[in-house]
Parts: sequence; structure tokens; C-alpha cells
Amino acid sequence: MNTASVVSPHQGCVVVVIAEAELEDILCDTLLDAGAKGYTVSEVRGRGNRGLRDDRLLLSNNVRFEVLCDEATARRVLDAVLGRYGQHYGIVAYAVSTWVPG
Amino acid sequence: MNTASVVSPHQGCVVVVIAEAELEDILCDTLLDAGAKGYTVSEVRGRGNRGLRDDRLLLSNNVRFEVLCDEATARRVLDAVLGRYGQHYGIVAYAVSTWVPG
Amino acid sequence: MNTASVVSPHQGCVVVVIAEAELEDILCDTLLDAGAKGYTVSEVRGRGNRGLRDDRLLLSNNVRFEVLCDEATARRVLDAVLGRYGQHYGIVAYAVSTWVPG
Repeated sequence: MNTASVVSPHQGCVVVVIAEAELEDILCDTLLDAGAKGYTVSEVRGRGNRGLRDDRLLLSNNVRFEVLCDEATARRVLDAVLGRYGQHYGIVAYAVSTWVPG
Repeated sequence: MNTASVVSPHQGCVVVVIAEAELEDILCDTLLDAGAKGYTVSEVRGRGNRGLRDDRLLLSNNVRFEVLCDEATARRVLDAVLGRYGQHYGIVAYAVSTWVPG
Repeated sequence: MNTASVVSPHQGCVVVVIAEAELEDILCDTLLDAGAKGYTVSEVRGRGNRGLRDDRLLLSNNVRFEVLCDEATARRVLDAVLGRYGQHYGIVAYAVSTWVPG
């Protein structure tokens, strides 16, 4: 049964995680385990130094996650993603504060 | 006739609206009616609680709108989108302030 | 040889550049020349006034670049992109400050 809910502009932050596409499933679980209520994901391409010594810029198929949450959840999500996978994969993660019209 | 215009870094805010793909056309009209001068749209996938009692996380084909505008327009866009569709659809909407290098 | 590096949440800013798809290759070079260490790119659609006198809103195939960098690089990237192509192409560019959990 669909119980509609009123949605207001999101106040809090957006966490963005960009990673290799093969990590999509495992990152979904990580995000939800860390307290995310949902996420948006899209296919993107990325080029960057993946920690290679010779500094080549590799182009790869990536996924971009976007998670709306409060600050405490953002902290948990970033800690979980970067703590578990940041050391071994070329993951980019950041948060942006959202603004709600006064 | 194409009259080129100088574009400077955008100062103001970015409104992001993520909604079910079927709402794309109606949301386009809503954004423009609310004063947006244009928008960027992309296909994304979303997983979240769509107000369902049993708390299942549904995966759906969504669209992600990105609108650059000033604060007054952002307020009108968010009010219009959430006021008309927020109650009956799983819409996420937020604004982020843009920063211009000094 | 792959030397893994620890990645922390990005503190600084995200520069977003949205432009006609034909400009992708030239913009890649511009971003890297301006000091970007990498970028994420995705296909998007855009509708906006492209400087046309008659104010029609044109829908076009665009690319959306997202670059994580520090403020100094952001300034150089925005200056380079808008200085070289802003006058003749319908380019949108902005920066957003990222937030790192305390």
C-alpha cells in the first residue's frame, strides 16, 4: 500500500561517491549499512591517476552515487566507503552541504 | 542569428531534482514556469523508500534535473516541484550554493 | 605497478562544466592543462538559451564534467574554460565547496 509522504527541500548534505563500476553492488550495501535511506546512481566515465607510478591517466567505466542524508550519516558513509575501499581502489568521495530557501 | 554571449562562473545556486522518469516532461514545464532559464537532465537509477509501508527499497528509472539559477528562482522551483508533486511521487529536491573564485 | 594510496574525503571544491558534446576532447585537454588531476564525465541533455535572439530553448547533447580540486586549481579551470570557450559556446561552469565531516 502506497502511503504518500510530503517531501520538503533536503536540508543536510549530499555525499557523492565515484568508483569503478565493478564496485557498484558492494558499494550499495556499504551505503545502506552506513545508514543511507536510498541513493541515486549513474554511469559515468572517469579519467585519473589511479595510484599508478607512471602517472598515466586511465579512462575507466565508473559509477557515481549520490546520497542525501544528514551530517552524521554522511560521516558514517564517507568513513565506511573510504575506510574499506579507499586504500585499494581509485575511489573519490566528498560531501556538499545543501541549502534550503529561507 | 547566433549572438554569442560571455559566460562567467555561475554565482547563485544549483537546484537538483530527482524523480521518476515518467515525470520528465511535466517537470520540464514546471521548472521553466517557475523561472528556470534552462536545465540539464540525465538518466539515473534510484533506490529508496517510496513511501511504502513495508519499507522495501525500490530500484527505479529516474531522471536528474540540474538547474542553475539565483536564490529567488531556486525557491520558486523547489516550491513548485515539491508543492505539486512531492506529496504523490518519490521526488528528491535540494539546492546547493555555488562558489565563484574571487 | 599499482601502488595503492589512501584516499580521504575531498576537501576543496568541485568544478562542474556542462558543454556541447563535440567539445569533450578539447575540454579534457583544457581541464588537464589548467591543473586538474583527473575528471569524471557523463552524457547529459541540456535545454537552454544558447544566445539565440529569438529566445528558443534548444535541446542538445551535452557532456557534464566534474573535477575535484583545490581552490587555486578551480579558479584556473574556470578561467581557462570560460575564457577560451565561454564567448562562443553555450557553456555552463560553476564550483561548489565540498564539506568534510569534522
